[in-house]
Amino acid sequence: MKNEFILSPSILSADFAKLGDEVNEVLSAGCQWVHFDVMDNHYVPNLSFGSMICKALKDHGIDAPIDVHLMVEPVDSMIEQFSKAGADLITIHPEATKHLHRSLSLIKDAGCKAGIALNPGTPIEVLDEVLPMIDLVLVMSVNPGFGGQAFIPASLDKIKRLRAKIDASGYNIRISVDGGVNQDNVREIADCGADTFVMGSAIFNAENRAARVAQIIANLS
Amino acid sequence: MKNEFILSPSILSADFAKLGDEVNEVLSAGCQWVHFDVMDNHYVPNLSFGSMICKALKDHGIDAPIDVHLMVEPVDSMIEQFSKAGADLITIHPEATKHLHRSLSLIKDAGCKAGIALNPGTPIEVLDEVLPMIDLVLVMSVNPGFGGQAFIPASLDKIKRLRAKIDASGYNIRISVDGGVNQDNVREIADCGADTFVMGSAIFNAENRAARVAQIIANLS
Amino acid sequence: MKNEFILSPSILSADFAKLGDEVNEVLSAGCQWVHFDVMDNHYVPNLSFGSMICKALKDHGIDAPIDVHLMVEPVDSMIEQFSKAGADLITIHPEATKHLHRSLSLIKDAGCKAGIALNPGTPIEVLDEVLPMIDLVLVMSVNPGFGGQAFIPASLDKIKRLRAKIDASGYNIRISVDGGVNQDNVREIADCGADTFVMGSAIFNAENRAARVAQIIANLS
Amino acid sequence: MKNEFILSPSILSADFAKLGDEVNEVLSAGCQWVHFDVMDNHYVPNLSFGSMICKALKDHGIDAPIDVHLMVEPVDSMIEQFSKAGADLITIHPEATKHLHRSLSLIKDAGCKAGIALNPGTPIEVLDEVLPMIDLVLVMSVNPGFGGQAFIPASLDKIKRLRAKIDASGYNIRISVDGGVNQDNVREIADCGADTFVMGSAIFNAENRAARVAQIIANLS
Amino acid sequence: MKNEFILSPSILSADFAKLGDEVNEVLSAGCQWVHFDVMDNHYVPNLSFGSMICKALKDHGIDAPIDVHLMVEPVDSMIEQFSKAGADLITIHPEATKHLHRSLSLIKDAGCKAGIALNPGTPIEVLDEVLPMIDLVLVMSVNPGFGGQAFIPASLDKIKRLRAKIDASGYNIRISVDGGVNQDNVREIADCGADTFVMGSAIFNAENRAARVAQIIANLS
Amino acid sequence: MKNEFILSPSILSADFAKLGDEVNEVLSAGCQWVHFDVMDNHYVPNLSFGSMICKALKDHGIDAPIDVHLMVEPVDSMIEQFSKAGADLITIHPEATKHLHRSLSLIKDAGCKAGIALNPGTPIEVLDEVLPMIDLVLVMSVNPGFGGQAFIPASLDKIKRLRAKIDASGYNIRISVDGGVNQDNVREIADCGADTFVMGSAIFNAENRAARVAQIIANLS
Repeated sequence: MKNEFILSPSILSADFAKLGDEVNEVLSAGCQWVHFDVMDNHYVPNLSFGSMICKALKDHGIDAPIDVHLMVEPVDSMIEQFSKAGADLITIHPEATKHLHRSLSLIKDAGCKAGIALNPGTPIEVLDEVLPMIDLVLVMSVNPGFGGQAFIPASLDKIKRLRAKIDASGYNIRISVDGGVNQDNVREIADCGADTFVMGSAIFNAENRAARVAQIIANLS
Repeated sequence: MKNEFILSPSILSADFAKLGDEVNEVLSAGCQWVHFDVMDNHYVPNLSFGSMICKALKDHGIDAPIDVHLMVEPVDSMIEQFSKAGADLITIHPEATKHLHRSLSLIKDAGCKAGIALNPGTPIEVLDEVLPMIDLVLVMSVNPGFGGQAFIPASLDKIKRLRAKIDASGYNIRISVDGGVNQDNVREIADCGADTFVMGSAIFNAENRAARVAQIIANLS
Repeated sequence: MKNEFILSPSILSADFAKLGDEVNEVLSAGCQWVHFDVMDNHYVPNLSFGSMICKALKDHGIDAPIDVHLMVEPVDSMIEQFSKAGADLITIHPEATKHLHRSLSLIKDAGCKAGIALNPGTPIEVLDEVLPMIDLVLVMSVNPGFGGQAFIPASLDKIKRLRAKIDASGYNIRISVDGGVNQDNVREIADCGADTFVMGSAIFNAENRAARVAQIIANLS
Repeated sequence: MKNEFILSPSILSADFAKLGDEVNEVLSAGCQWVHFDVMDNHYVPNLSFGSMICKALKDHGIDAPIDVHLMVEPVDSMIEQFSKAGADLITIHPEATKHLHRSLSLIKDAGCKAGIALNPGTPIEVLDEVLPMIDLVLVMSVNPGFGGQAFIPASLDKIKRLRAKIDASGYNIRISVDGGVNQDNVREIADCGADTFVMGSAIFNAENRAARVAQIIANLS
Repeated sequence: MKNEFILSPSILSADFAKLGDEVNEVLSAGCQWVHFDVMDNHYVPNLSFGSMICKALKDHGIDAPIDVHLMVEPVDSMIEQFSKAGADLITIHPEATKHLHRSLSLIKDAGCKAGIALNPGTPIEVLDEVLPMIDLVLVMSVNPGFGGQAFIPASLDKIKRLRAKIDASGYNIRISVDGGVNQDNVREIADCGADTFVMGSAIFNAENRAARVAQIIANLS
Repeated sequence: MKNEFILSPSILSADFAKLGDEVNEVLSAGCQWVHFDVMDNHYVPNLSFGSMICKALKDHGIDAPIDVHLMVEPVDSMIEQFSKAGADLITIHPEATKHLHRSLSLIKDAGCKAGIALNPGTPIEVLDEVLPMIDLVLVMSVNPGFGGQAFIPASLDKIKRLRAKIDASGYNIRISVDGGVNQDNVREIADCGADTFVMGSAIFNAENRAARVAQIIANLS
């Protein structure tokens, strides 16, 4: 089974003084989701933003799916806050919760899709018992919590192994990739089995954002 | 000595989809500072936003002083991030650092003004050894980290005792008040010795913000 | 103003295989309250019991006030659990919460009376801003969390200073004493200003419990 | 090799006002072990009870094996307290100790049998290096720390895989199942390879407890 | 009452490749105590050394009192380790223990003298309930955990207030000062009421250590 | 591929009053590396020593590779301190960092070789995603943080499986063994695939250290 490709631009690279306009611009250009990098200065050493931004965008009329990546610890209260604020998909780190099944259940019970994020050093075996519950695996191709890192080449092989594992399971689970993804490597990443692409600076820092999105889509076609 | 009155609107109540415009509006109306309620889901059970918002507003041309209230634990790395992002005054909680003098030194060494926030239950004696280092005391008139709380009446007496303590010390230290402050009680609060007023919903949720700010200034005159 | 004397036997010294009978026995003997020493192996290095015991006693028909001493950290979720389970008075440690006023508010909002426990080394100034909110101060005359300790003599002077502080405030606040209290020292402790007496082994380990309670009451008269 | 079936009723569902009688009743009905759900409000968000309950039952003449499930973090001091209080088998979570081999060694050195509990989301590979040390694996068929959850169906497949892994190892290790187990599903669970059954409400909340235990035993025969 | 002056050189500034010789040299020069700065990378952001160094020096024949400053959290297990290793005086931070009286009791019960360290921002009121138990107050005249800081001038006034408080109490308690103390300011510090002087680089980095110690003693006379 | 054998004597067993001489003695006897057991009283319940000892030895002219085993949590700041102090190889525990790839990157970026330590209970699958980054795996054959433990026999099989896994990967990665290694079992350990041997008391507590080192080398030949 083959999922359609999804572009999920990370607002971490947008201009927060006019966030509504920024998000509308990249959605108009053809991006389908809006990616939230939520950091709490504990699971990762930076503080970004919480669920109030999610609510603000929803109130602003943004109806694209909100794709939330929780780099926070503990996660359970944040799951509750983001599901109430209108999130559509919530992705968590297995390292950030002692009760992974319970945290995933919280997400599903709130009516959201659930994802698991894999750090570059995290083995894919952590998924073994929860594959039936999840809708997406987020492969971190950089270490979360810092900007300006390059795509880790070993991620490609990891995506391939993950694609094989998921296909063998029979579940329909997206593979999203986050970190150093851009117009130049997106085709190769997709060929390894990914179908969802988080991009921050590659889109928001482009001189012509619409052209950049079009280029990415073309490269994926 | 008498400090001029300062209004410091809290952007927590603003529309984050168009934050630059929101802030410009209340500054044009006569507010002098911009108040940041920074929460990390650890010192308080909510996550708000980090230094990237500070940088975004500065890049947007906002040149009013940024008045940062760190409800985070630990605080030292956040002090560094906010001072780099352009903060002018950074206020911390003594409960959130084991080395209060060191944290205050970090603020001062970064060229910022330093404040200490007093929770409703915190005795004012915690200031005893650091009065020479600080520029502001932030009296919390609600418990930090939650919205929708009413002004705690016992705060008035606390402000009076604090004003007396500061005046006796000979230092020039502002007293700011945060929580449930509005056009109706601001005069009484000022009469107790406060000179800086943090207001969120009282300003941003007013039907006519400019009129509300004018009313507050009038009540203070 | 003078409060009547209250005996609050600590069930920590009772036989937990037949707790209902044990509690009824000491209440019949003349004790008025039932004292709970709740330990979580974090604030103190022992684990005792949670709110289920409170509910079990209430369901068993015990209608004496349940006097809960929370030696737990953090405290807020335990406050909620014990108030739901039927507790009448909940006492917390200032060291165990960063937001003392908020934790006390939780207790009061749940309809319970609120107390603050002072460790042997804790200065009484921690009460300064919350005297208007509390119904009881629990003076620890041993260090909490361990059995078999002797009454710390310096507690007597602390009780006197505390009694003076409370009387000067005009609030009606009980002073309870916990640790090494028995039939021999209860009179002296009362003379210092205490009016509530927590006793574990002095009551439950007596050969004749009814006679022991009668003796304590007689010594207090 | 085939172990005999063991019923281990969880006293969490018993009446704590007359615990000795409650436990004797279910042992008389044919249960062999007594199950302790020890929660510390840190590893799981509830506080249940500590080793004093174990000692009380032993002092009360209960001589059935005490089967302790430690949902606490850290675990090492609790292992020591429970082994001293008379526990026979102590089960721990790998997530709750950084030194799993050392914690298991503490249990064995104290003369107790040792178990490892697997949360619903925990892969069975965590057992790989410690199979030679353990006497029991506790498969959690609900998430620990909360009441009223239904048996997670995916647990059945996990039990089968675990049974196969243990049999392949050649070690004699019991498989216990905890969470939503009752008279209706116990047969199916046993058929997957489990031989020890923790039941709380299924036994203690039955109108006729003796009849319920007889029914469970019959279903297992 | 006037205590004799004590010099307590901090081995943090010594050459750890030949520590025995280093310590003997400064003791021969006239220093009376040996100061240990114990850091655990948690209470302060550096790791120095543990009780094994204490035992090594004792085994090496050093019989001068070992004056241990524990910048660690939690402290209780370190108190036990250092008292067993031969420490004579153990000083702790009130911020690093929730049970100050219990930690001090551990020190005294082990046969050691007990001290309390005051961070630059810590009010002296934290001593109120424990003055009867302590033998020394360590006034930090820099923030602990970092090298190369200058003496904080406000420390002088704090030492004076502390001297007055101690003298008023009637207890015989030493005042030790640590941070930026050297031959130039030691006289002024002593005049404020201190009687014990911790010095690291001022002694160990001197070209002629014996001459430097002699100079300090002369300045104090 | 076959690596030459390396002996890495742990200075934890040396005399810290004359550490420079101690280290020179065992290096002269034929040991190639110097092993540091760094403990912070948090990841393990002991405090040993920090990077200042590393710097002291380097300043003392020791130019053998410093082989640092960080039993600390968190690890990142210690990595930085030890790399600055002259460490050559830094080994960390996967349990002690949430971002294993990032911590390893810090080591490599600082120009050091990187190792991963496996506790006795830790499965070797934790290495799966980071094999390309590491130079050494440290198999703990006792539980870290305590002295006087015997070699765990199951370690031999673990070393064999690890050797096979590494050889299959094609990477050149050393296997070091730490805990209860001595002249009697070193041959058997080497035969399982280890090539690096940490020894503390086996070397430093020998009556004739040079003879002991010669014996070990002979047994390995």
